[in-house]
Amino acid sequence: MSTLVHWLDIAGVVAFALSGVIVACRSHMDPFGMLVLAAVTGIGGGTLRDLILGHHPVFWVAQPIYLWSILITVMLAMLGFHHIHRLDRRLLPAVDAFGLALFTVLGARQALDAETPVEVAVLMGLLTGIAGGMVRDVLARRVPMVLRREIYATASIAGGCLYVLLRRLDIDDAHAMWPALLVTLILRLAAIRWHWSLPTFAWVTTGGEEGDARWPMHRQRPRVRIIRPQRSRDEASDDD
Amino acid sequence: MSTLVHWLDIAGVVAFALSGVIVACRSHMDPFGMLVLAAVTGIGGGTLRDLILGHHPVFWVAQPIYLWSILITVMLAMLGFHHIHRLDRRLLPAVDAFGLALFTVLGARQALDAETPVEVAVLMGLLTGIAGGMVRDVLARRVPMVLRREIYATASIAGGCLYVLLRRLDIDDAHAMWPALLVTLILRLAAIRWHWSLPTFAWVTTGGEEGDARWPMHRQRPRVRIIRPQRSRDEASDDD
Amino acid sequence: MSTLVHWLDIAGVVAFALSGVIVACRSHMDPFGMLVLAAVTGIGGGTLRDLILGHHPVFWVAQPIYLWSILITVMLAMLGFHHIHRLDRRLLPAVDAFGLALFTVLGARQALDAETPVEVAVLMGLLTGIAGGMVRDVLARRVPMVLRREIYATASIAGGCLYVLLRRLDIDDAHAMWPALLVTLILRLAAIRWHWSLPTFAWVTTGGEEGDARWPMHRQRPRVRIIRPQRSRDEASDDD
Repeated sequence: MSTLVHWLDIAGVVAFALSGVIVACRSHMDPFGMLVLAAVTGIGGGTLRDLILGHHPVFWVAQPIYLWSILITVMLAMLGFHHIHRLDRRLLPAVDAFGLALFTVLGARQALDAETPVEVAVLMGLLTGIAGGMVRDVLARRVPMVLRREIYATASIAGGCLYVLLRRLDIDDAHAMWPALLVTLILRLAAIRWHWSLPTFAWVTTGGEEGDARWPMHRQRPRVRIIRPQRSRDEASDDD
Repeated sequence: MSTLVHWLDIAGVVAFALSGVIVACRSHMDPFGMLVLAAVTGIGGGTLRDLILGHHPVFWVAQPIYLWSILITVMLAMLGFHHIHRLDRRLLPAVDAFGLALFTVLGARQALDAETPVEVAVLMGLLTGIAGGMVRDVLARRVPMVLRREIYATASIAGGCLYVLLRRLDIDDAHAMWPALLVTLILRLAAIRWHWSLPTFAWVTTGGEEGDARWPMHRQRPRVRIIRPQRSRDEASDDD
Repeated sequence: MSTLVHWLDIAGVVAFALSGVIVACRSHMDPFGMLVLAAVTGIGGGTLRDLILGHHPVFWVAQPIYLWSILITVMLAMLGFHHIHRLDRRLLPAVDAFGLALFTVLGARQALDAETPVEVAVLMGLLTGIAGGMVRDVLARRVPMVLRREIYATASIAGGCLYVLLRRLDIDDAHAMWPALLVTLILRLAAIRWHWSLPTFAWVTTGGEEGDARWPMHRQRPRVRIIRPQRSRDEASDDD
């Protein structure tokens, strides 16, 4: 593994570990619980990637520097918490966005290096990018980010497709990584900043509510409607 | 792998992917989030099966046709959503039942082919059948189906035991699969249709509620009671 | 694997299976759902351990005695439920504590035997110890124990560090296991009994609530505060 990839991998682990610390902090966890959530978030995606690709041993078992990165991140975050509070609530998705972009590209890269088909590489990038954050949010009983309405999986898929395409065009690995990484990161950060979202398909219960008692044959029935981004933006602010 | 098993495997992936789309639709996810949930549900059980049995590479890494099946399922489902709304809310558990039956038999089959003991094969069938749906429900913050009161794990275990028994009696693989598949499917569909359920053991807090203030020594204490299916049926309709 | 380790491993599986039964009982699950939750809790941590360490086949695939232990545990628990209700609500965390202590030491032991670095061994002990219970709590939609305020991850990390230290000092395996096991168990049981907890870092929204309407520039802002154990104890009793 080249030095650049190694450092990017550590950067991704640190970004996700930091996002785990922020969530742990909101959930009133103690320092060691914080460490657990940071570790699970930081190494979750990469562990799934290595297990599925059959890459033994798993990256953090072979190189304990990843675990030390997490430990140092947690300790520095605890020391600096009095300054973190000055930052606003978009810090968590922003930090998560860095991890998403880094792990998407690194996951797709490792899949291509294992000579998987291109569609598998895109999915591996996606799974590597979102798995750690999913486990973090499920454990902390939060709405997983991939379920929120702002562009999330879309950014990862876009970046993964771009990386795979560039590699297919025989572009050098280092030159293929940066554009893909930036596309994912910028798409996701812009989505957070301006509440970008795609239209959603929603299961809406329609039918005359007031007439329900009088006309029992007109039962409320679920309908699927396309909800425009504008409307979803308003709703998104509620469950934030 | 024989052609029949290959097609059944794809059918299971499509069924679970469709169930993922329905859940994503109820959770107001955007198209790419929908794709993620469909993919995780469709390949989750099989991935776990392949990882535990040490079957490398994982089925969808080796054969990208599974990923294309998921992509096509999601796209067709989006196009056909205006018709899906005419179907009632039991569509989701019904689609899930097909995936459960298919993956139960395929999981048990692959475990037997890896020469595991029979009890391991039954459990592998069960895990393969329920894992994808569990991840789907946990991510979408729904009550996992295996926790609902209608027969679910029971159907999978019954089908798995039947398949293992038939294979032990030296019955041809193809002839052992169909009865096991149908038993699981029919048991589960019947349970959905007529709200079949087994008696449950429940932790009920008993003790004189009215006397609580006067007789502080008579504290409410949890008791375990067997709740008959009739009563559980009424409760089941609430959290649907 | 020595006989002692084998029996300790079975004891850990039984303890976690029993904790799964108790949770299943509170969630009104039917007998087979109970079996599923007991199995997932009992073998979850060890399965993750074996997958990450690349130890094939996974322990319960090689030795079906683990599955029979779970089955017998569930059946005995059902027969004995009328007596379990006499025990208080701290039964669940106490049973869970035994599993945590056993799996922490066994996980760290297996990692060291696979010649991983010491920090990896501590983390493997932690993951092995908490994974089964995490899956159990997430499936049953409970607050994961590691998120509660009483010492949990701390006990596992302390036991894991002690075990690794003793092994590093060339102490015999059997003599290194018992102290580590007891430290984890006693720390966790004491934390349950006396509500021990470490200070937590919490994200508290501060700012003049009454002045909010008049002084819009003084927005509530989240602050990080260290919450002392005393205060966290009072809060802990709420979400129990």
